[in-house]
Amino acid sequence: GGAFAQSNVSIYGIVDLYGAHRTADNARAQNGVDSGGLATSRIGFKGEEALGNGLSAVFTLEYGLDVDKNTGVGATAHMARQQFVGLKSGSLGTLVAGRLQGLSYYTVAAFAGGVGGGPLSPLASLQTSANNGTATVGALQASITRFNNGIAYTSPNFAGFDFGAAYSFGNRASGAEATTADTRDSVYELGANYKNGPIAAGYVFSRAVDKLLAGGSDDLKLNAHFLGASYDFGLAKLKASFQTQKNETGGSESGKFDIWQLGVDVPVTAAGTIRAAYVAYNDKFDTRKADDAKSWTVGYTHALSKRTTAYAAYTVVRNDNNAGLKLFGSGDTVTGMAPVAGGDSSVIGCGVSHAF
Amino acid sequence: GGAFAQSNVSIYGIVDLYGAHRTADNARAQNGVDSGGLATSRIGFKGEEALGNGLSAVFTLEYGLDVDKNTGVGATAHMARQQFVGLKSGSLGTLVAGRLQGLSYYTVAAFAGGVGGGPLSPLASLQTSANNGTATVGALQASITRFNNGIAYTSPNFAGFDFGAAYSFGNRASGAEATTADTRDSVYELGANYKNGPIAAGYVFSRAVDKLLAGGSDDLKLNAHFLGASYDFGLAKLKASFQTQKNETGGSESGKFDIWQLGVDVPVTAAGTIRAAYVAYNDKFDTRKADDAKSWTVGYTHALSKRTTAYAAYTVVRNDNNAGLKLFGSGDTVTGMAPVAGGDSSVIGCGVSHAF
Amino acid sequence: GGAFAQSNVSIYGIVDLYGAHRTADNARAQNGVDSGGLATSRIGFKGEEALGNGLSAVFTLEYGLDVDKNTGVGATAHMARQQFVGLKSGSLGTLVAGRLQGLSYYTVAAFAGGVGGGPLSPLASLQTSANNGTATVGALQASITRFNNGIAYTSPNFAGFDFGAAYSFGNRASGAEATTADTRDSVYELGANYKNGPIAAGYVFSRAVDKLLAGGSDDLKLNAHFLGASYDFGLAKLKASFQTQKNETGGSESGKFDIWQLGVDVPVTAAGTIRAAYVAYNDKFDTRKADDAKSWTVGYTHALSKRTTAYAAYTVVRNDNNAGLKLFGSGDTVTGMAPVAGGDSSVIGCGVSHAF
Repeated sequence: GGAFAQSNVSIYGIVDLYGAHRTADNARAQNGVDSGGLATSRIGFKGEEALGNGLSAVFTLEYGLDVDKNTGVGATAHMARQQFVGLKSGSLGTLVAGRLQGLSYYTVAAFAGGVGGGPLSPLASLQTSANNGTATVGALQASITRFNNGIAYTSPNFAGFDFGAAYSFGNRASGAEATTADTRDSVYELGANYKNGPIAAGYVFSRAVDKLLAGGSDDLKLNAHFLGASYDFGLAKLKASFQTQKNETGGSESGKFDIWQLGVDVPVTAAGTIRAAYVAYNDKFDTRKADDAKSWTVGYTHALSKRTTAYAAYTVVRNDNNAGLKLFGSGDTVTGMAPVAGGDSSVIGCGVSHAF
Repeated sequence: GGAFAQSNVSIYGIVDLYGAHRTADNARAQNGVDSGGLATSRIGFKGEEALGNGLSAVFTLEYGLDVDKNTGVGATAHMARQQFVGLKSGSLGTLVAGRLQGLSYYTVAAFAGGVGGGPLSPLASLQTSANNGTATVGALQASITRFNNGIAYTSPNFAGFDFGAAYSFGNRASGAEATTADTRDSVYELGANYKNGPIAAGYVFSRAVDKLLAGGSDDLKLNAHFLGASYDFGLAKLKASFQTQKNETGGSESGKFDIWQLGVDVPVTAAGTIRAAYVAYNDKFDTRKADDAKSWTVGYTHALSKRTTAYAAYTVVRNDNNAGLKLFGSGDTVTGMAPVAGGDSSVIGCGVSHAF
Repeated sequence: GGAFAQSNVSIYGIVDLYGAHRTADNARAQNGVDSGGLATSRIGFKGEEALGNGLSAVFTLEYGLDVDKNTGVGATAHMARQQFVGLKSGSLGTLVAGRLQGLSYYTVAAFAGGVGGGPLSPLASLQTSANNGTATVGALQASITRFNNGIAYTSPNFAGFDFGAAYSFGNRASGAEATTADTRDSVYELGANYKNGPIAAGYVFSRAVDKLLAGGSDDLKLNAHFLGASYDFGLAKLKASFQTQKNETGGSESGKFDIWQLGVDVPVTAAGTIRAAYVAYNDKFDTRKADDAKSWTVGYTHALSKRTTAYAAYTVVRNDNNAGLKLFGSGDTVTGMAPVAGGDSSVIGCGVSHAF
């Protein structure tokens, strides 16, 4: 520690740890300390430089941390959350390029009910295990949350309204085909948000296309619409979202589902808020129409300061028939905690999230 | 570089490099530049936020560096040294969770003689190669120095006295069994320290338990007691430590040993200190009773400033009979420098350690 | 973000992203967003502490970033650019140890024409694929740009003149032999620079020796001389360089070539500069005398501020006969973009480089 004379970069981040008890049908219960119950632990470096004429250069370098484990900065599963440089203008909007968080990342986060958007979140749980856990689709799904080789435009705010568009070039030759599903050919996103006093709404259309070698498997496509809205009554804030998605493999439908969510945040003291949410996954695909799932949560957050929050939540995922949806996987403790088909799983967690 | 307006985080670290000449019976000598002769090179980010009522939130993110090599922040062997968030109260003590340095880390460091606690330290050398180098035991040993999924409590200081307790949940389902020895089921530590004027003393009990699949190998257990003390006579500071440890595999004793240490620091100028230490390893296990070892060092540290120290040391490990203890392994140069059974090894190193 | 009171360390770096269109004979064209067109994206931490008597301790920790991808700090191909600690004296010079950038790194950078010294640079392209792409030689070549386990001395500046020497211990026992070419036994460098008003010149001799196990393959040796000069006429700045290099495998010549370069920077406005360069690779080895190559570029840089630069360039590599030289490989998009033997490749790129 000592004294700086530097204005070009600011360091920020979150250190979030919680104790968790997890259960799943047909598995032993787990107890452990995990990273990122309320928000993914991270460290970032960012800055903004005025270039004149209302234009500025902006950059962000942000890396995920697994603070309960022996992993470095941006190591293992949580690597680069975002790395970009761009130009920002008050009147023209912002254009950035690099590894980016998708429009859907921000819109989903704005309307997710419960405690955080990760391991305690019913919406994140059903979204990430949607399509009943097909791994290739999971990878495609992840590619609309964050993508490499991307460019994104966000408009200025017009009386509470803004819109954006994003594109990822993927990681290979234009027109060439990949041998694995790990890299996406392209991601397209279009979105719009509105906020005015107590009311807020957001919509994102996401399309991810994955061209695979004939020798591997066929092309994958994902088309998703996400619509969220919230209204703050003062005594309580209501949140709702609807997502409808269709996946194609080799030109034929391979997945189709809706996800509904209803959430409520009830401030009970100046610092404390009770948060609950209910999410329904409705599988609409040919052979899986009975494979639905539900998830709900009840939790509490208590602001110890502006930067430090204590939190607790209990979250359940219930599967119908042969559905295999599960809690948002995060951290090492979760390994092997997927329930049997049609089974249930739950997590109860309690922790502290500190932002710096 | 430019100007900051930020008080939430401070950056700190150590860049430590030394030239080394290493020998071992039956091996060619090695010369090289290595990282971390006096203290492991590292970079860290930490902060403290007052929450009111004497309570504060604290966090630390600290990563090891191999500054002589092409490795990133927290890459390869030196990854996360510590990553935690916690609550601290002057009257109630400190409670932290995350990846933690064990109580034994601090107590051993406080009473280790010679130059640093790493590649030039006779105590570190014999501790890390104790039990005559059984790899699984080595991993178990490491788990009491730093552990994942941990919680730790440290008491406030009561008239020079404080105590602490730590627990690691390990990395898997409670009661479940692992297929490898890489992850520990649990670590328990209890410790106490006393400091008053010239006198200091510390004690730690450490217990690590590793439950393995029947198909892999049997359970491992480690129980260690470490007791250290020092007295500063002014003209010289004496340090002494005693460690007694027992390891079990599948319920039967698989290792048993004592480690004695005597060290002395003699200030010779305002900035310079001569440091020497002698350590004896006494193997008490059934078939290895003659496999003892000794290690000693003589070194010198010279403070170029408060933050920069030049240092030099010569350290030897001598094995009896079939013992295979060796110098603390650190850095790439050391590869293959284990002596033949019953053989000797030595290192002479000279470097600069700079803290920021 | 918040307020600092720290003077020991400053954070710096570059976030550089560009859109690229790449072609190569016999390969599909590629489009993508890549990292580091003008300068490798990076983050670093450095500091200097006065020790009295004109002496100071200096350190630098600098890591490469792939900002278009999901990689951490110092991960994958771009790891540690430099990690060192050292002592600096105005009258005696600077001595550092650690992972170092070679003298050739700085001298080549000072006289490279075109836009940057990486993926858009004709000199970097022909240097890194010289010897017609023999992988072992490529690794040897890389070891004179940056090396591990190094020490380096740089003299003070004497009326515009300075000199330096560097040595790398490699990564293994002195005299021992390795089984792979990945680690160098030793690197030696000697260099000198002169700068006076509009004139600048630099020379570096680099020698890398790689002793391999008889069972692997024979010893590798690289001896390179690089000479660069520039003259700033005001209306234009001329740059020229000449490199001559000889490689040996097992005591016999295995490569021999010259690289000539001529570059010109023409300031066209206060902020804008047109930059062009032509580079010729002349293979002089026994069986490859007809395998020559050329590379040229024309580009433009526009300073949006002192720290932010927009840039664009078109760069071509042309191979004669069976030569297989190619554009400087960087980023994921380039995979598979080597031309057929005797073929051509090109890149057109346009981006923003922001320093903090």
